[in-house]
Amino acid sequence: MSDRLFIFDTTLRDGEQVPGCQLNTVEKVEVAKRLEELGVDVIEAGFPVSSPGDFNSVVEISKAVTWPVICALTRAVENDIRVAAESLQYAKRKRIHTGIGTSDPHIRYKFNSTREEILERAVACVAYAKKYVEDVQFYAEDAGRTDNEYLARVVEAVIKAGATVINIPDTTGYCLPQDFGAKIRYLMENVKGIDKVTIATHCHNDLGMATANTVSGVLNGARQAEVTINGIGERAGNTSLEEVVMTFKSHKELGIETNINSTKICGISRLVSSLMNMPVQPNKAIVGRNAFAHSSGIHQDGVLKNRESYEIIDPKDVGLDENSIVLTARSGRAALKHRMHVLGVDLTGEALDKAYEAFLRLADSKKEINDDDVLMLAGEHRKSSRRLKLDYLQVTSGVGVKSVAAVGLNIAGEKFEASATGNGPVDAAITAIKQIIRRQMQLKEFLIQAMSRGSNDMGKVHMTVEYDGNNYYGFSANTDIVAASAEAFIDAINKFSEL
Amino acid sequence: MSDRLFIFDTTLRDGEQVPGCQLNTVEKVEVAKRLEELGVDVIEAGFPVSSPGDFNSVVEISKAVTWPVICALTRAVENDIRVAAESLQYAKRKRIHTGIGTSDPHIRYKFNSTREEILERAVACVAYAKKYVEDVQFYAEDAGRTDNEYLARVVEAVIKAGATVINIPDTTGYCLPQDFGAKIRYLMENVKGIDKVTIATHCHNDLGMATANTVSGVLNGARQAEVTINGIGERAGNTSLEEVVMTFKSHKELGIETNINSTKICGISRLVSSLMNMPVQPNKAIVGRNAFAHSSGIHQDGVLKNRESYEIIDPKDVGLDENSIVLTARSGRAALKHRMHVLGVDLTGEALDKAYEAFLRLADSKKEINDDDVLMLAGEHRKSSRRLKLDYLQVTSGVGVKSVAAVGLNIAGEKFEASATGNGPVDAAITAIKQIIRRQMQLKEFLIQAMSRGSNDMGKVHMTVEYDGNNYYGFSANTDIVAASAEAFIDAINKFSEL
Repeated sequence: MSDRLFIFDTTLRDGEQVPGCQLNTVEKVEVAKRLEELGVDVIEAGFPVSSPGDFNSVVEISKAVTWPVICALTRAVENDIRVAAESLQYAKRKRIHTGIGTSDPHIRYKFNSTREEILERAVACVAYAKKYVEDVQFYAEDAGRTDNEYLARVVEAVIKAGATVINIPDTTGYCLPQDFGAKIRYLMENVKGIDKVTIATHCHNDLGMATANTVSGVLNGARQAEVTINGIGERAGNTSLEEVVMTFKSHKELGIETNINSTKICGISRLVSSLMNMPVQPNKAIVGRNAFAHSSGIHQDGVLKNRESYEIIDPKDVGLDENSIVLTARSGRAALKHRMHVLGVDLTGEALDKAYEAFLRLADSKKEINDDDVLMLAGEHRKSSRRLKLDYLQVTSGVGVKSVAAVGLNIAGEKFEASATGNGPVDAAITAIKQIIRRQMQLKEFLIQAMSRGSNDMGKVHMTVEYDGNNYYGFSANTDIVAASAEAFIDAINKFSEL
Repeated sequence: MSDRLFIFDTTLRDGEQVPGCQLNTVEKVEVAKRLEELGVDVIEAGFPVSSPGDFNSVVEISKAVTWPVICALTRAVENDIRVAAESLQYAKRKRIHTGIGTSDPHIRYKFNSTREEILERAVACVAYAKKYVEDVQFYAEDAGRTDNEYLARVVEAVIKAGATVINIPDTTGYCLPQDFGAKIRYLMENVKGIDKVTIATHCHNDLGMATANTVSGVLNGARQAEVTINGIGERAGNTSLEEVVMTFKSHKELGIETNINSTKICGISRLVSSLMNMPVQPNKAIVGRNAFAHSSGIHQDGVLKNRESYEIIDPKDVGLDENSIVLTARSGRAALKHRMHVLGVDLTGEALDKAYEAFLRLADSKKEINDDDVLMLAGEHRKSSRRLKLDYLQVTSGVGVKSVAAVGLNIAGEKFEASATGNGPVDAAITAIKQIIRRQMQLKEFLIQAMSRGSNDMGKVHMTVEYDGNNYYGFSANTDIVAASAEAFIDAINKFSEL
């Protein structure tokens, strides 16, 4: 058997299903391009029938990406499959991912059906997808809790119908590594034609076992791992790309290789965390802020610890460069461009010019420009073309005084002003903005992210605003956290405002 | 073999070693009492020789806790062991945890020694500890990378010397589940006297395998699992208590039982996260905000998902109660006390009176009081006795204006005032405070935590201030994030200020 493991990234499909993490098409294309650079083999780009936004994202990612296979998810429903095929029309290499639940709870409660009927539907959906594309991947949802004998029958039947990849998901995250490995081995040994297809693992992390289950699946014959950046996903999330890749990279004796350029891992981890508003905890394996001893400075209590004794991965292998250039007012445009690239953002031409101007202004008031600042600058260029702009904001607050804000907005050239008091400076600023934008908006999530060090560092604000039944995401960064909050609110409003 | 798994919690020792997470003695005792209530078998309370603070914490925890064994860590050094024994004098049940590195990298680079010499030192430290206590646990540091045959020799020798528990740590987090399990099995099968002692696992999460390695170790004969709440610890952290416990609880077929009352898990998880300034990521297994489908609201895209199909653990089993009482101005003192208890804080007498008064004031300005608010109120009572108090604060900031702050402090009865401009409102407020407290203080970490929903919810600020070579932790919560930042700074200063 080949020792090449295919990495199937589903950050943009299963990862993105989490409420509050939705990306727009531009953001999805940005992540997809970085996934290509990272070296993933397959990008699951969306579930096209679920919404026009998802459909459009698959179309745009198909146009933007060259090497990875673009994959679109469907249920075992003909219309889903037709729509998926249409969304994939521009993909250079395309795959339809269709399937159905095969566990008894799914068959009984979700489909109110029988094993025989489900088997027929499985075969039918693969055959139907085969009319549109050559490469058809079948998923047996909740395979983790599906009886092995029945699962083998289903798998054998869909292979006969033309499936090229068979996905065995542990949908509920219930499996233990030995059992999940045994399931894969059972299929390898009992399914006719299994040697002509690729078996895929798709594990969830509800018991903290996703990585171990995936590795166990691969050691027992699976050759595609379905993963997400930072392990994001519903509930406790999916398998982490970075953990699986670095396990095989540091355990060379297992003889499994991937196409991943691991030095790109930290960059895309930060990009996804920031775009999706999903903080990575400091003690997250591989990509957490403390994941490496030398970055958390654990040399204390007189216990001398030499690095080889405690670290199994060289931080440079995952793109973490402690000796990163600290940018200052004397740094050139090339240095800024390079740092942005390392952090996952590529700017050119006018956008780079504007970011560099803003960089010089910031470097004037802050001596050292760190990575958070650079990411903020990278985001700045998106704002200039917006319809709704903040002209001025003045807020007074404190202890023993009432918070009050005055705000001026420029909406497509016209100026508006308002003032309001509130329960703290952010509340006052947002209430004032609401007096100008008289819509039924509700602030759903409001997260202020770590200002890394010192009181004059950047504050980053993530926000979700509900309007007309949809959630809109807003972001801003500013040395003034109150100003950043008002800007993030305006950023979100801009996404639905055609005032 | 017994099917009872002992849970050895090292949140207060290995977990607490992370820079920026240090707790004071009062906080440690608070966590220890909650660990007792949770039902852990052993509490590793500190590394007494490392600092007077650690020594004192072991003393105070020994006094405060009744049922769990209190364990103190040492190196294989006689003075360490003497000091540990002294710190344990008040413990009802006590254990000394001593040991030495046994892997070749540790023997060569850390000790510049030989296998034979290390074996002698291992035996000597156990024999020495045995003079002070009956219950002596031995750790073979970096056992994960120690040659099995040599490891078995060391283990056999220390058992002969009187060790009652043998800890097999995967110090670097490098092991795979099958290999770690095989290592435990090798010891079970090859060490004379192994049936008279307990084998312990102590796994790190550098490759995301800590839980799987621990479970594999137990399935191969280990009967003590060394874990931390939320998996906190150096680098990528230790094994998560909650993941190991819930794995065995949901896999009854494995026949392993613990003494843990799992409904206490969410409460202590929040307490530790808040006290240690270590956020839990939303997709963390078991204790993350999104860990359960019903709490992240994933019922969308028209895909009806019934709960049994997707959830393997009942959220109530880990103490997550969606139908928690929302407190309002009409809630009584008992309701507040109960909610605080659920969240991990027990107040009585005057402290409860004050918290209830503050609660009524807050409920007046906010209609619904959520869990974050309650935690803030629980912390409030600690502040009233402080030397340094904030009299007033007024800050003006915005977009297009310069941030300026005026501050009044009361220091042991005397009043001081100052004003300053800054790079944002927080910077201005902190600069003004610094003009009064003229010391060489440096703000090292500054984290504003999620204000759960809506702009008028609580902002929580965590801060680390370096003074005279030591780090001091400050915390505050306020509907005004700028005020909370100033208060957290003052909270930290109070910890070292004897002005």
